[in-house]
Amino acid sequence: MFLDWLRQRASLTPERLALACGEARWSFRELDERVTAMAGDLHARGVAAGAHVAVLMRNGAPLVTALHALSRLGAVIVPLNTRLTPAELRWQLADSQAARLLHDDAHAVVAQSLTIPCVAGNGLQSSGITLPPPSSLHFPLSQPHSIIYTSGTTGQPKGAVLTFGNHWWSAIGSALNLGLHADDRWLACLPLFHVGGLAILLRGVIYGIPVIVHESFDPVAVNAAIDDERVTIISVVGTMLQRMLEARGARPYPPALRCVLLGGGPAPGRLLEECARRGVPVVQTYGLTEAASQVATLAPEDALRKLGSAGKPLFPTEVKIEHDEILVRGPTVMAGYWQNPEATARVVRDGWLHTGDLGALDDEGYLYVLDRRDDLIISGGENVYPAEIEAVLLSHPAVAEAGVTGLADEVWGMAPAAFIVRRAAVAEDELRAFCAERLARYKIPARFTFVDSLPRNAAGKLLRRELTRLM
Amino acid sequence: MFLDWLRQRASLTPERLALACGEARWSFRELDERVTAMAGDLHARGVAAGAHVAVLMRNGAPLVTALHALSRLGAVIVPLNTRLTPAELRWQLADSQAARLLHDDAHAVVAQSLTIPCVAGNGLQSSGITLPPPSSLHFPLSQPHSIIYTSGTTGQPKGAVLTFGNHWWSAIGSALNLGLHADDRWLACLPLFHVGGLAILLRGVIYGIPVIVHESFDPVAVNAAIDDERVTIISVVGTMLQRMLEARGARPYPPALRCVLLGGGPAPGRLLEECARRGVPVVQTYGLTEAASQVATLAPEDALRKLGSAGKPLFPTEVKIEHDEILVRGPTVMAGYWQNPEATARVVRDGWLHTGDLGALDDEGYLYVLDRRDDLIISGGENVYPAEIEAVLLSHPAVAEAGVTGLADEVWGMAPAAFIVRRAAVAEDELRAFCAERLARYKIPARFTFVDSLPRNAAGKLLRRELTRLM
Repeated sequence: MFLDWLRQRASLTPERLALACGEARWSFRELDERVTAMAGDLHARGVAAGAHVAVLMRNGAPLVTALHALSRLGAVIVPLNTRLTPAELRWQLADSQAARLLHDDAHAVVAQSLTIPCVAGNGLQSSGITLPPPSSLHFPLSQPHSIIYTSGTTGQPKGAVLTFGNHWWSAIGSALNLGLHADDRWLACLPLFHVGGLAILLRGVIYGIPVIVHESFDPVAVNAAIDDERVTIISVVGTMLQRMLEARGARPYPPALRCVLLGGGPAPGRLLEECARRGVPVVQTYGLTEAASQVATLAPEDALRKLGSAGKPLFPTEVKIEHDEILVRGPTVMAGYWQNPEATARVVRDGWLHTGDLGALDDEGYLYVLDRRDDLIISGGENVYPAEIEAVLLSHPAVAEAGVTGLADEVWGMAPAAFIVRRAAVAEDELRAFCAERLARYKIPARFTFVDSLPRNAAGKLLRRELTRLM
Repeated sequence: MFLDWLRQRASLTPERLALACGEARWSFRELDERVTAMAGDLHARGVAAGAHVAVLMRNGAPLVTALHALSRLGAVIVPLNTRLTPAELRWQLADSQAARLLHDDAHAVVAQSLTIPCVAGNGLQSSGITLPPPSSLHFPLSQPHSIIYTSGTTGQPKGAVLTFGNHWWSAIGSALNLGLHADDRWLACLPLFHVGGLAILLRGVIYGIPVIVHESFDPVAVNAAIDDERVTIISVVGTMLQRMLEARGARPYPPALRCVLLGGGPAPGRLLEECARRGVPVVQTYGLTEAASQVATLAPEDALRKLGSAGKPLFPTEVKIEHDEILVRGPTVMAGYWQNPEATARVVRDGWLHTGDLGALDDEGYLYVLDRRDDLIISGGENVYPAEIEAVLLSHPAVAEAGVTGLADEVWGMAPAAFIVRRAAVAEDELRAFCAERLARYKIPARFTFVDSLPRNAAGKLLRRELTRLM
């Protein structure tokens, strides 16, 4: 049994800076007090241990407080992507069996439309309710901490159940790889509803270092924070890093910035080479939601020698390649998909997580991610699953067949493109509007191509990699 | 299930320096190869998973190799204090049910006298035997790693069973407190048969940093290594540090030395003040075998402000005070005493380890160790238990009653002193010789006082704290 991490941290190093976000600059003591107050309030409103609580909030101090408060109560966090449409949100709320939705002002209108008991997170204050006695602040590592939705081949997102242990081991494995310095400060400009953002919050508490949270990604603001806030570690995806470099111009980053952790899919060689030339300490990483973020990371000492590699597994995770697929085993592998034993059994076998991503190990054991699975398009760091878009397109009466694949995109790395076999006349604009009602903006195909038939194998399976030949 | 730590480390960072000891300077790859060879040899000689294997070797590369090789085979290590007499060794061998004794040349003679199958560790070489397949290199954290003997109130040492998990959590808790730098190098001049020395070896592998092992403590050699080997962390006890400072003279330590981890009982204020004056980065720690070494450690930032404190518990360990006694709970607390459920039940209750040591928490939660338990004398970092010495004295026919307590000692901090009620004439020299046959040298009373009676309470319990009044 573990004592609540934030409580433990606040008792160990109460005066260290915990969070810098907007106007807020809170020590661990202050963060702990605010979390206690919000937890008391949530408790008074009926949020109990074991309850699934969805969170629809933008990055900010209220979201940070809410996430820690829910953990403290033993509630299971269901972080929702704020870019989803009401239809997508409704699906995840129903599937996760969320009992409550915690939202901020920016999402008040959509929240009210979702037919679930809502709590306005921004408005939460201490209601003077005291929490249960401290003994309830203990939890086992096997306890679920969060359910994070990730789409897949089935076209419907699946909820990856991540335990406190999954997150703990991820934090420890990362520290053993990147090291841990007394002056470390980690900048989170990724959404906290993604596992990569959430992981930074938890690391801040486990490591006892400040987390700088940006409300959204603005390359100028990020560059300024690196200078002014003495940021030492920042997590980014390729498109973010590209925009940071463009906004930065020729001015070098300060030496205090020791690690630019680059995730979100294979990075373009051009970007890595530019970083090497400019002395940006980029550290490539490969991870996925089902393994609580980082799986393999290039050690800083190898950053130049193994450019393009995602490095080696984090201690004590193991990685192997089987039929070109990357397999992962270790204590960060999820407990399973929420109420989906079939899907869980398909991807976790003998303790090995079958990622579906293609990769290879070189003769020194360095992982190269060759391609994310063929049904995955990574656009600006967001995972986009063709099957999900195809399912929406197929629900339109004029669409007979639909195939979606990724096209290279200057800004986002990749963008989805749709190939349609019509059964009745329909214009591209109408299909785009149809998608916009049902899919988050980053999932809407950037391009529609009408064709006579789709490439399929003998068994009738769609061959997505061959779609681009039809353009 | 975890992959063998050294194997994992060797696959992650094969070329990093792992060990510097005497002439040996081995990378993790080389250490792993030597461990594989020795494990194969031990396996061929019948050492199997689960076997208890006692080790009687002085600090050195062969001992380091042997300890890792035994872990790799899944054998349980019983490290023996090389200062024990044959009688004491025989007792621990029998109690631990050791199947084999691994010894070096220096202990060949005594080993042969112990009536247990012996293996000369120095002479082990690869016999060309291949190990079982890699799947057997996996182990659960709950698996016993070592049984380390620690004496106690009963007069007989008890074997603390420490699991892989106990050692793992200890290493992680220490890293979260002290930080982890890419250039860290930890100097081990403590005996590796103590938990504090053994812990350094395991940390080296888990952290991926070099361990510098000295064959014995020599203050001049230690000071030179700090300069020449770029040592960043060193573990010492008070008497060692005192002698290092004396040998060093006015010359400051290099700034690379960032942590002098000071354990082995409360340190004299004078020593701490001298360190503060001279800028020696001393970090006080409190630990015990039953909790796999460090329990609480003063964070570097508090070293001056909280001089004399042992700091706060390592994440995620909890410490509390009950009736002035220090209680410890967390994943470093031993699995129990080997085949001694009664003793285990006495000290581990509800997950809380009752240390027997007296302490207090100040209003900021910093631990002050007021006194080790009244039956413990810490002499030069070695734990000496009065009951054990009293039992030996009482076995002499001329001794009617015996009481032992600690006296302040210029060199060793404390030294045992005996108070004897005679039933027949016996000289001090005879009692000293009698002890020397049965007790390690550091346990032999520095002083014998013959008295008419011993101070006892109404129930007849010896009041050791009052013995010194009889001098």
